[in-house]
Amino acid sequence: MYTNALLTDLYQLTMMQGLFLEGKHEQYCVFDRYYRSNPFNGGYTVVAGLEHLIDYVSRIHFSDDDIDYLKKTGIFCDEFLEYLRTWSFTGDIYAMPEGTVAFPQEVLLRVHAKKDECLLLETCMSMIMNHESLIATKARRVRTVAGKDALMEFGLRRAQGESAGVYGARSAMIGGFNGTSNVLAGALFHIPILGTMAHSWVMSFPTELEAFRAYARQYPNNLILLVDTYNTLKQGVPDAITVFQEMKEAGTLPKSYGIRLDSGDLAYLSKEARRMFEEAGFGDAVIAASNDLDETLISELKIQGCAINSWGVGTNLITAKGSPSLGGVFKLVGQYDGDVFVPKIKMSDNAEKISNPGIKNVLRIYDKKTGKMKADIIALEGETIDPTQDLHLTSDKAPWRSRLIPANSFEVKTMLRPIFLKGKLVYDLPSLSDIIAYADEQMDSLWPEYQRLVNPEEMWVQRSAKVSALREKVLKEESLHFF
Amino acid sequence: MYTNALLTDLYQLTMMQGLFLEGKHEQYCVFDRYYRSNPFNGGYTVVAGLEHLIDYVSRIHFSDDDIDYLKKTGIFCDEFLEYLRTWSFTGDIYAMPEGTVAFPQEVLLRVHAKKDECLLLETCMSMIMNHESLIATKARRVRTVAGKDALMEFGLRRAQGESAGVYGARSAMIGGFNGTSNVLAGALFHIPILGTMAHSWVMSFPTELEAFRAYARQYPNNLILLVDTYNTLKQGVPDAITVFQEMKEAGTLPKSYGIRLDSGDLAYLSKEARRMFEEAGFGDAVIAASNDLDETLISELKIQGCAINSWGVGTNLITAKGSPSLGGVFKLVGQYDGDVFVPKIKMSDNAEKISNPGIKNVLRIYDKKTGKMKADIIALEGETIDPTQDLHLTSDKAPWRSRLIPANSFEVKTMLRPIFLKGKLVYDLPSLSDIIAYADEQMDSLWPEYQRLVNPEEMWVQRSAKVSALREKVLKEESLHFF
Repeated sequence: MYTNALLTDLYQLTMMQGLFLEGKHEQYCVFDRYYRSNPFNGGYTVVAGLEHLIDYVSRIHFSDDDIDYLKKTGIFCDEFLEYLRTWSFTGDIYAMPEGTVAFPQEVLLRVHAKKDECLLLETCMSMIMNHESLIATKARRVRTVAGKDALMEFGLRRAQGESAGVYGARSAMIGGFNGTSNVLAGALFHIPILGTMAHSWVMSFPTELEAFRAYARQYPNNLILLVDTYNTLKQGVPDAITVFQEMKEAGTLPKSYGIRLDSGDLAYLSKEARRMFEEAGFGDAVIAASNDLDETLISELKIQGCAINSWGVGTNLITAKGSPSLGGVFKLVGQYDGDVFVPKIKMSDNAEKISNPGIKNVLRIYDKKTGKMKADIIALEGETIDPTQDLHLTSDKAPWRSRLIPANSFEVKTMLRPIFLKGKLVYDLPSLSDIIAYADEQMDSLWPEYQRLVNPEEMWVQRSAKVSALREKVLKEESLHFF
Repeated sequence: MYTNALLTDLYQLTMMQGLFLEGKHEQYCVFDRYYRSNPFNGGYTVVAGLEHLIDYVSRIHFSDDDIDYLKKTGIFCDEFLEYLRTWSFTGDIYAMPEGTVAFPQEVLLRVHAKKDECLLLETCMSMIMNHESLIATKARRVRTVAGKDALMEFGLRRAQGESAGVYGARSAMIGGFNGTSNVLAGALFHIPILGTMAHSWVMSFPTELEAFRAYARQYPNNLILLVDTYNTLKQGVPDAITVFQEMKEAGTLPKSYGIRLDSGDLAYLSKEARRMFEEAGFGDAVIAASNDLDETLISELKIQGCAINSWGVGTNLITAKGSPSLGGVFKLVGQYDGDVFVPKIKMSDNAEKISNPGIKNVLRIYDKKTGKMKADIIALEGETIDPTQDLHLTSDKAPWRSRLIPANSFEVKTMLRPIFLKGKLVYDLPSLSDIIAYADEQMDSLWPEYQRLVNPEEMWVQRSAKVSALREKVLKEESLHFF
């Protein structure tokens, strides 16, 4: 059996071997994971994927089959392959918990490990965290516009592969969805599984009405009837009303019941359906909708006064339409020459691509009165901010902008948690429902201005004075050295 | 262990149980898989995913853990769960081979099976085929503009999950790529694995030049030096030339050698680098590039006369940027009432969403002289076209348009192959290299006008007279019945 140790780019393995042969593979390094801009032109990213990452890191090793394959490629020498046989992750990982709201340039995750360990982890770690954070973020955007409506994840058939479907469903929950149609995701992650009726059911009976009656017989407690197989308003809704009426008379109508719209103009059809239900005495029927929905369309439908209160969101959520990737990167921020830590920087012709050197954490400033986030400071690990003193902030991007946060008006939280120490998992994995509660709390601490779909307010994120000074220093040294 | 039998939407399982309890689950049905419009506003789709689908269908069954989970949901009765224990796929599947070029409305795959088998297969089958065809199509668009240049798939770190990375790499090969950086994909599918040098390598040495020399020592036969860590033209390219010169003098310069550009303006930098190499006597150096490439950017860079001849394409390929999903659907086209086949149609308010009823195949008309495709006919299974007679075509969408293809000027090929018959695999799985050869041949049979990235010519695809007549008939019956 091949393992996920092979789920990496070839150059990570060739760099590992090269360093091994040059005697440099065990140099102890620090790498940061961060991203440069928010997906969907939004105001934030919701961190997800940590549980999956922990599973990957905990289990990573090379199987005999892995080694045999690598040998067959002709690229690797026996000495290195022998070394891989007993290779495992022995370093430290610090990370923001799942559900944390994060912003560009922030340290989302930090690895302290031998250089070859950092290299091997990079690709798969990036893939897992990029993907799951992306979907959680997309889901949260949908939740923002859906308010208190029900949100169902329906995307499996259009997902980019099995893991996209399964981990996407979990990420959607972190982003505020209520459940998924994906049964395997339900089984693996204890997510509520949801579903209504298929067109093929309606087409399995001589008439739509017979199909609805049979469904009501089989699933009286999940009574959402799909009304668009033939003609939504002329037939589907009247047939649904007939069945609701029959059940009402028999005393079997459940507390929650309704219809699903899957084609046509959802604003118009839902309003007409609502009117028909009200006239027939079924004003509390659920009107669910699906069909190429995303946060923009839901928002527009709501502006038009649609009468939908349950949304099945599929393709555009599960594929993160609009921003199908999150550009999270993993960069060397320092390494040890013996016992001496040497901060490092990734130079670039593009100023915004230059990384922040040093071992860092993120300090989040919350307003005491409202509980809302005010700013994030990228600080050196161990740096503290005294909340009994005024806090002076100066923007990194626009140094002429500054802010004062008065003493005793704020609280400070440190965002990274230890996950692995010396290769051992030290983090108590929270349950998915705890993660969801934390994610909701994180979002509640963001003013709506930062949650806006389009042109949101930008969170104040800046380096601490110490990080700025270190960056200047390293930048100057690197420039002297190389130009 | 949970199995992929759970990798489905809940409603497929609830519909299965409902039909089971209504005694309708064994009704024999025919379902078509097709899609309605080409991804990326392109002229075609490259079919991929069949091998993966075959693996899925061959192995599908419910494990004890699957059944236990379903029981715990409280949705399923014991009688149905017992039925699932021995459930397997017993039907027939016909499909276009991987690598086939396909067009909207065409039958890509046809299933003849008990209704509950069609239901269970729908979601996962759609996911597999949608995803892999999408990536193969994206890759083919890149190949179209890359001409004979080398194309490397580098997307794993931004893929939407593990399967997106692994099956995406395979699909990229069907779309004409030369290899992947994804080691697991290489191991699983015998794909060439490729890679160059990482920034972290350069940063592991005191100077770039020392890093290049060490790399040349370790990998003299994969000598592609990454030149953008500090300053591409002032330092990276000169350092590379120094190393090439040293190797030339030592007689160790390999036949293929060169550099990779990963930031900055790729057109300008590549032209300057080429000039510098030519002046130094290394005019045949490979110039590879990466950094947010896709078919549009490569095309533009080529128009600007860039000197790149090897491309690493990552994020935008592996996530199918621009069209991150393929809207393939799976629709009932007929069912058996006892021994009588009753053609079925999916009604819709949108005309283009109405399906073609009946058991159908696709007949492809090739011009004898050029070998190019001329038209596709969606015909009833068993319908033939006599190539010794004139062929009169009339457009479905624009009935005033017609064409005559003269007798003896064309050949006819039938596009669907039997894959499973009565649940048994009857298809000899071709090797990936055979699939790639067939995919290349398929693309060669398309005039460049159909391959254009933007506003391509539309392939002539029409129903046969028999399919049209059947569609009219069923449409009329359904309308009478329901409105």
